[in-house]
Amino acid sequence: MVFKKITLIGRSTESFDDAADDAIDRAEETLQNVHWVEVDELGVEVAGAETREYQAEVTVAFELEE
Amino acid sequence: MVFKKITLIGRSTESFDDAADDAIDRAEETLQNVHWVEVDELGVEVAGAETREYQAEVTVAFELEE
Amino acid sequence: MVFKKITLIGRSTESFDDAADDAIDRAEETLQNVHWVEVDELGVEVAGAETREYQAEVTVAFELEE
Amino acid sequence: MVFKKITLIGRSTESFDDAADDAIDRAEETLQNVHWVEVDELGVEVAGAETREYQAEVTVAFELEE
Amino acid sequence: MVFKKITLIGRSTESFDDAADDAIDRAEETLQNVHWVEVDELGVEVAGAETREYQAEVTVAFELEE
Amino acid sequence: MVFKKITLIGRSTESFDDAADDAIDRAEETLQNVHWVEVDELGVEVAGAETREYQAEVTVAFELEE
Amino acid sequence: MVFKKITLIGRSTESFDDAADDAIDRAEETLQNVHWVEVDELGVEVAGAETREYQAEVTVAFELEE
Amino acid sequence: MVFKKITLIGRSTESFDDAADDAIDRAEETLQNVHWVEVDELGVEVAGAETREYQAEVTVAFELEE
Amino acid sequence: MVFKKITLIGRSTESFDDAADDAIDRAEETLQNVHWVEVDELGVEVAGAETREYQAEVTVAFELEE
Amino acid sequence: MVFKKITLIGRSTESFDDAADDAIDRAEETLQNVHWVEVDELGVEVAGAETREYQAEVTVAFELEE
Amino acid sequence: MVFKKITLIGRSTESFDDAADDAIDRAEETLQNVHWVEVDELGVEVAGAETREYQAEVTVAFELEE
Amino acid sequence: MVFKKITLIGRSTESFDDAADDAIDRAEETLQNVHWVEVDELGVEVAGAETREYQAEVTVAFELEE
Repeated sequence: MVFKKITLIGRSTESFDDAADDAIDRAEETLQNVHWVEVDELGVEVAGAETREYQAEVTVAFELEE
Repeated sequence: MVFKKITLIGRSTESFDDAADDAIDRAEETLQNVHWVEVDELGVEVAGAETREYQAEVTVAFELEE
Repeated sequence: MVFKKITLIGRSTESFDDAADDAIDRAEETLQNVHWVEVDELGVEVAGAETREYQAEVTVAFELEE
Repeated sequence: MVFKKITLIGRSTESFDDAADDAIDRAEETLQNVHWVEVDELGVEVAGAETREYQAEVTVAFELEE
Repeated sequence: MVFKKITLIGRSTESFDDAADDAIDRAEETLQNVHWVEVDELGVEVAGAETREYQAEVTVAFELEE
Repeated sequence: MVFKKITLIGRSTESFDDAADDAIDRAEETLQNVHWVEVDELGVEVAGAETREYQAEVTVAFELEE
Repeated sequence: MVFKKITLIGRSTESFDDAADDAIDRAEETLQNVHWVEVDELGVEVAGAETREYQAEVTVAFELEE
Repeated sequence: MVFKKITLIGRSTESFDDAADDAIDRAEETLQNVHWVEVDELGVEVAGAETREYQAEVTVAFELEE
Repeated sequence: MVFKKITLIGRSTESFDDAADDAIDRAEETLQNVHWVEVDELGVEVAGAETREYQAEVTVAFELEE
Repeated sequence: MVFKKITLIGRSTESFDDAADDAIDRAEETLQNVHWVEVDELGVEVAGAETREYQAEVTVAFELEE
Repeated sequence: MVFKKITLIGRSTESFDDAADDAIDRAEETLQNVHWVEVDELGVEVAGAETREYQAEVTVAFELEE
Repeated sequence: MVFKKITLIGRSTESFDDAADDAIDRAEETLQNVHWVEVDELGVEVAGAETREYQAEVTVAFELEE
């Protein structure tokens, strides 16, 4: 029962919380046993004054199947 | 008038902001002179697809009484 | 076309997201071409039990004019 | 001949050495050309006084096939 | 239900594993709800050629009582 | 639209630039949407005086397909 | 014989050396067996041009009683 | 005679050396007394398979005029 | 009310304290609202055995005017 | 009475403890006054499935003779 | 068979690659068994607009003789 | 003309400045061309309430002879 870690970057036009949830949602679509998530970095892409994209880089830890 | 620092991990099912507030609330229950708080790490405990616990590890600085 | 980076600390009585937005708003008042923002540190100033000021230290990258 | 790196967490009730070996064993079950391993973090899960699970987070470097 | 973290340094004349266990044992004598332990640093005190003291600095996370 | 990051080590007998390009070339053979690359570490394998292998460890960020 | 580490911030209007001594003095008022101190950070609070408060954040290691 | 440091990101379609030079060239257009430069990060923007932009984030130290 | 941070290196032939003060003095000549200073690095330039220049790299935080 | 620090990498086919001891043994063959050792990194060289070489990079501090 | 690591800074008026080679060349003049080299830092000394000296700080690992 | 770096720890019963000078003095007794020194760590050994030994770990850079 070994854990593996992968790194994803979630994105949201609303908030950092949404960006982190976005990455976790994506992880759970393809991975069965996600256990915990560490936030590595937060950032914002700014493309003109009216739109900001919040980004959360997260490390996702899940249990490998035997 | 020396400051001391301790490390707490607050938890919330809502957001990272709530998790940090949770830790600060707990600190202020027992400590008189909390001055500032530094966020060390953000993470998420994932126990099944339906529940996520947001966690904020914070360092709390307070003034020691003479 | 060289980028420059500066460091600002935004402040909000509401949330970390607001604090980061506060710093980005200020950057866009005086800078034309903000491209992206990295969150360096999150913290909270605590002045008495009833008021908390959320702070976000961010690095703002913008394109220098020729 | 490019190397790739992945991150695994091995677990053992005996020792940190066993925990690292556990992760390397798992890597070698599915990967052909493991070259070296770096230990990133050591930790212990404590669930009650009588059982401790030693954990070793390692980065495994292996050669990608052409 | 907030976690608190403290830092201890365990010592052993046998091995790094023993040194880490030494610190965890001490933590469990006075703390009820130790959940996990992170190894921060490993070192060796060398006092003459015949004796070596292995040391493990660990951060112990435990749940604060309500 | 979530990004994923993987870590590769490119190798070249010519230069660090070539080593980084080597890793990016390999990434683009199997990945559709590489967006950016961060250089993590540079190193040189020295096997005898006459041959040096320049190595560049890079993190490759690409967009996951829906 | 386990060591424990705590973090204090000493303050002085004279110098960084005084600020570190201030924290060590405070530690020795309440702790019996202080062995060594590590300087984590130095800083200056500036409140108007005429007064500067030098600050030294230090980690104090002391031996726990059996 | 105080030094100031600023952070720039130079860009080149040729190499990391060119990207660093690009940033230093820009610094010397507007600053009189550049003394030294530290490379903080190297990266590559990948926009399609045929074009790569090498980037070098550098910190430029220059002497402030009296 | 946003803070900005800049990085200066003060220099002194006397001590590290003087070198830090040198940088803060320079900052206060041109900036109105310096709030605090963080010491990033200490170093010594050695030009021959008889003269040593103590240097303190500091980050100065000041409040931007509205 | 000044300390000097050097960096060694010990190797063992048995365990990380043995690898650290290997480096300390070597240091004490040529150095008189080794005082303490810090473990910088642990790693494993994997050459085929049947042999693993545990490695411990350590910094050795010893007292320089007058 | 213990490895030792030393730190050198190579210099070149041409490129970072040349600066790293410069340090490795020097290491191989006096050391028999250089195995690998890690690049720690890249920098540029700027003395006037027309000359730039590229510098590469590297850690050189070599095998100690029995 | 390659630089080499070594690490020393100077000690003083007076101040951190003295401890750094102590290490630089020792370096200049045996090395011809010391150019600069970086302070890595400051610490205090506390052996009973009445004596404190200030320590400064420094990296000394000097030019290797051809």
